[in-house]
Amino acid sequence: MNYRAPVDELRFALRVHGNLDDILQLPASDGLDADTVDAVLEEAAKFAEQEWAPTNRTGDLNGASLSDGLVQTHPDLATAYRSFCEAGWAGLRAPAEFGGQALPAAVSAACEEMWCAANLSLSLMPMLTLGAVDALLKHGSDEQKQTYLPKMCTGEWNGTMVLSEPDAGSDLGNLTTRAEPFSDGTYRLNGQKIFITWGGQEMTENTVHLVLARLPDAAAGVQGISMFVVPKFLVNSDGTLGGRNGVHVIGLEHKLGLHASPTCTMQFDNAVGYLVGRVGKGLAYMFTMMKTARLNVGIEGHAVAERAYQNALAYAKERVQGHDAENSDGSAVPIIRHADVRRMLLVQKATLAAQRALYLRTAALVDTAASHEDNVVRKQAEREADFLIPIVKAWLTDNSTVLTNLAIQTYGGAGYVEESGVAQYMRDARITPIYEGTNGIQAADLAGRKTSGKNGALPCSLLAEGKTLAEKLSAADPTLAEQLQNAVAAAEESVAELVSLADAPVLTAAASAAYLQQMGLTLGAIGLARTYVAAQDALDGKTENLFGHDFYTAQQHNARVYFAYVLPQVYTCAAQIKQGQALLDVPLVLF
Amino acid sequence: MNYRAPVDELRFALRVHGNLDDILQLPASDGLDADTVDAVLEEAAKFAEQEWAPTNRTGDLNGASLSDGLVQTHPDLATAYRSFCEAGWAGLRAPAEFGGQALPAAVSAACEEMWCAANLSLSLMPMLTLGAVDALLKHGSDEQKQTYLPKMCTGEWNGTMVLSEPDAGSDLGNLTTRAEPFSDGTYRLNGQKIFITWGGQEMTENTVHLVLARLPDAAAGVQGISMFVVPKFLVNSDGTLGGRNGVHVIGLEHKLGLHASPTCTMQFDNAVGYLVGRVGKGLAYMFTMMKTARLNVGIEGHAVAERAYQNALAYAKERVQGHDAENSDGSAVPIIRHADVRRMLLVQKATLAAQRALYLRTAALVDTAASHEDNVVRKQAEREADFLIPIVKAWLTDNSTVLTNLAIQTYGGAGYVEESGVAQYMRDARITPIYEGTNGIQAADLAGRKTSGKNGALPCSLLAEGKTLAEKLSAADPTLAEQLQNAVAAAEESVAELVSLADAPVLTAAASAAYLQQMGLTLGAIGLARTYVAAQDALDGKTENLFGHDFYTAQQHNARVYFAYVLPQVYTCAAQIKQGQALLDVPLVLF
Repeated sequence: MNYRAPVDELRFALRVHGNLDDILQLPASDGLDADTVDAVLEEAAKFAEQEWAPTNRTGDLNGASLSDGLVQTHPDLATAYRSFCEAGWAGLRAPAEFGGQALPAAVSAACEEMWCAANLSLSLMPMLTLGAVDALLKHGSDEQKQTYLPKMCTGEWNGTMVLSEPDAGSDLGNLTTRAEPFSDGTYRLNGQKIFITWGGQEMTENTVHLVLARLPDAAAGVQGISMFVVPKFLVNSDGTLGGRNGVHVIGLEHKLGLHASPTCTMQFDNAVGYLVGRVGKGLAYMFTMMKTARLNVGIEGHAVAERAYQNALAYAKERVQGHDAENSDGSAVPIIRHADVRRMLLVQKATLAAQRALYLRTAALVDTAASHEDNVVRKQAEREADFLIPIVKAWLTDNSTVLTNLAIQTYGGAGYVEESGVAQYMRDARITPIYEGTNGIQAADLAGRKTSGKNGALPCSLLAEGKTLAEKLSAADPTLAEQLQNAVAAAEESVAELVSLADAPVLTAAASAAYLQQMGLTLGAIGLARTYVAAQDALDGKTENLFGHDFYTAQQHNARVYFAYVLPQVYTCAAQIKQGQALLDVPLVLF
Repeated sequence: MNYRAPVDELRFALRVHGNLDDILQLPASDGLDADTVDAVLEEAAKFAEQEWAPTNRTGDLNGASLSDGLVQTHPDLATAYRSFCEAGWAGLRAPAEFGGQALPAAVSAACEEMWCAANLSLSLMPMLTLGAVDALLKHGSDEQKQTYLPKMCTGEWNGTMVLSEPDAGSDLGNLTTRAEPFSDGTYRLNGQKIFITWGGQEMTENTVHLVLARLPDAAAGVQGISMFVVPKFLVNSDGTLGGRNGVHVIGLEHKLGLHASPTCTMQFDNAVGYLVGRVGKGLAYMFTMMKTARLNVGIEGHAVAERAYQNALAYAKERVQGHDAENSDGSAVPIIRHADVRRMLLVQKATLAAQRALYLRTAALVDTAASHEDNVVRKQAEREADFLIPIVKAWLTDNSTVLTNLAIQTYGGAGYVEESGVAQYMRDARITPIYEGTNGIQAADLAGRKTSGKNGALPCSLLAEGKTLAEKLSAADPTLAEQLQNAVAAAEESVAELVSLADAPVLTAAASAAYLQQMGLTLGAIGLARTYVAAQDALDGKTENLFGHDFYTAQQHNARVYFAYVLPQVYTCAAQIKQGQALLDVPLVLF
């Protein structure tokens, strides 16, 4: 077994960062209690470890292929997917009225970490299905809901998001797929789409494609985009499956990683489509799903890096090589004894802890924004979630490249050999900084609209928690307190810098990546300060000691390592933010 | 054509950083002049672009395989290798007395950049051959030299370095391959070796393996290791080839990248071997080669990142997507117009320029150390080269991961698709931080023996140039001057910090990676300051304007971008160096 689901870490983080007590009070959490949540996490952990994790390498070695127009995947994946549906995991956060279990986003996010770590390629299929469920639930007609949602909430049917075209990737405004009205009120879609994850497979009875296309008289740009349901098999009025629709996979990408997940080029030939909601609102509807999708992509990058870390740790404990400066008998030692190997492991471990704090806090805000009884609280939670989501998406996934590479490096030569398995984690995670909006787009969103456009009020209110925590830390660990204060002050300065650039969009863009990174690093530090204080309270007997002395001590070490070795990157970011002009001064002809 | 050899950049850097004028005065450069060097670079560029670069992806798609005990490679590689030998490139820096061209290391290094960028997998074969030539030249008997070197210097025979075993990687002291003396003064070798690059192929007539093994009565550890020549085919006294020796490839690794380069597991069954030099000196001899090998590995990482950058740049100029904040007509623009894309490109470009300055300076020091007439100058050059080599090896190769990932990110979704070719550069480059001594080992060497062990005199003398350059810069660009001064001051503090840890080897080890990175970043800045001043002199007409106004202006922009966006990482490093204790405080049981 090379994946151990970090159940205690998740239980702890759900309580401290995911505001579990508050979440359980929300109307949507009706009847749910902490014990049930713990049981869900423990069952999910078992399932991820035993049913999914062993299929990860099989899927990598036996990638999806296209043969006679059908997407072929390794049979172990179909078995793993069916077990997932049968155990009820497919509908974990799906609405109860359509057969889902309606668990809070925070609990679902913790499970997502386990699915993604166990088999990222496979996890994308149910994740996309839930995205499509969200869209239909919010924007579909009653008939559409009744037709599709019950089967989608069990995972018997899956959903896809069909957006990109060769000339319409980051900028969907260019898309050209056409939807012509048909006499019966339906539409006929024609066009080609690319990069469609799980666009085809033979594991489910039916696939519900949500497709962006243009009516013949549509406005140019994003205003002219509408959303359509295009089922693989048409659905008869009695719910049985009818004829095969005109949507087919015509090619698969040969990718760096995610070999088990078919990335499809799809042809729409007079495919029957049903308009979702109103004409011209397609992109807006897609964006309601996109928030959750972006949060999930952050979790994906994090989850794969967690598994890579676990593997690197196991290797470092086992691999004997070289001598220990403090070991006088001269015998060789496991490489974890070498300080530089420990550095690589601890940077991974501490960063992962900070990331878990951040994504669970964000998921909790999504829950609060969705169903808190107080409108003011709801709105503030929504604003905070909107601010944090691009950070979770981009910071966690940029980190996933760094961390999985550290895991490879920990292995030395064995890391470069595919048999060790660690290279796959790097290859798989590498898509996460790219899809669902490249990290550059996340940074532009954060730095522009969400910071300088609003006078920086929101980031400053999030940073304020850092000051409170620094005060709490000052007795227990004055060094940490000072490091946190300095980092928060630097972050506030950077916010002010961004605000001062409000009328200079190009300079804002030049500063955006460094700004996002600085905010991620600083909010990660605030998360670990929260961890430290919570651990101290448990160690001091002020709160229940649920996880034991060693657990809390290890969490506090995570904070110390992060503050010493990871957080100092903020000073690089702060300098970069101030110097974007150097990038803009270079004339294009001199590249 | 997706590789353009950067000839002007190399010519410029050879002059400014490679001390070309001085190198041409060395006794070893007898008869060589700058025009000839230029002609060599131009021919090498053509060859790399036209003969080798097109085989790079072919080799990746058609990796080496083992069949009936023979290593099979794509026929295009054999053709490319033969052309290389026929054109005389194989013996570029090999000794003239054995048919080589004896060009200086600095010129050879510039050519290496082009070979590695054109086809890294293939370039390893002649590079390893030259390493073996070096070892035999220095430590072999006259008979061994006469037997092997003439054919090796033409590339007709290749050489390998056969070191690692399953339990002897970073620590070769554990190796167990045995060499038993035979009655005729030869030896019989038995054992298994792993990770042998180009250990087998059918492209050359013969292969000269340099193998580390132990005599039966050898001391434990590194003192008991001797070096042997083990030819694939025995060589008769008249120079013709005799019987097949008992050395065979029994397996190939399935690697993340470098698919065209066979990484072999080799079995020695009573293989006939000939002792090189003295018993027990094998590792010391190997280390004389290792210096050059480590310099070369740095160049490898750099070269692949250069090619990745060129591809990303071309894509960014061509790919139209999104709108320009300053473009009022609303039409879509090439993505290079977006500030964040420019950031990614410019960080690549500026870092590559700094790297080129550093490796060429190091190669020039190797030349000076080898043949300057003044013993004092020679010794100082050797010390400086010894200090810089681990930095070139580790900093350039750590950067190669970062830079090739930036190149992928520039492509967006297309970067994740293998067809675009950019992912291969990242996969290929990923070995360079690992082999020839992991970057952790480079850092330990730099921080320990070469810094704190010598009171930091050497790094401080290298940093002193930064202060002189800062003064020169202060008129032309006071911002750059200040940035350089601050960075040099920070580096001096870190050297002092390391010196203060001289009696604390574990803390030194904990600080070592950050220290190496800070030195690389700072020495890279000093290189670009040198560039800036040289460019200014040419622009001002104080020196010959060899490359034109745009070229020099672009070089100065590299310096500005680097100082603004890359160099500020030193402040992170400086903080990390001071806080290594946080890593050591974590008990192993809490991992």
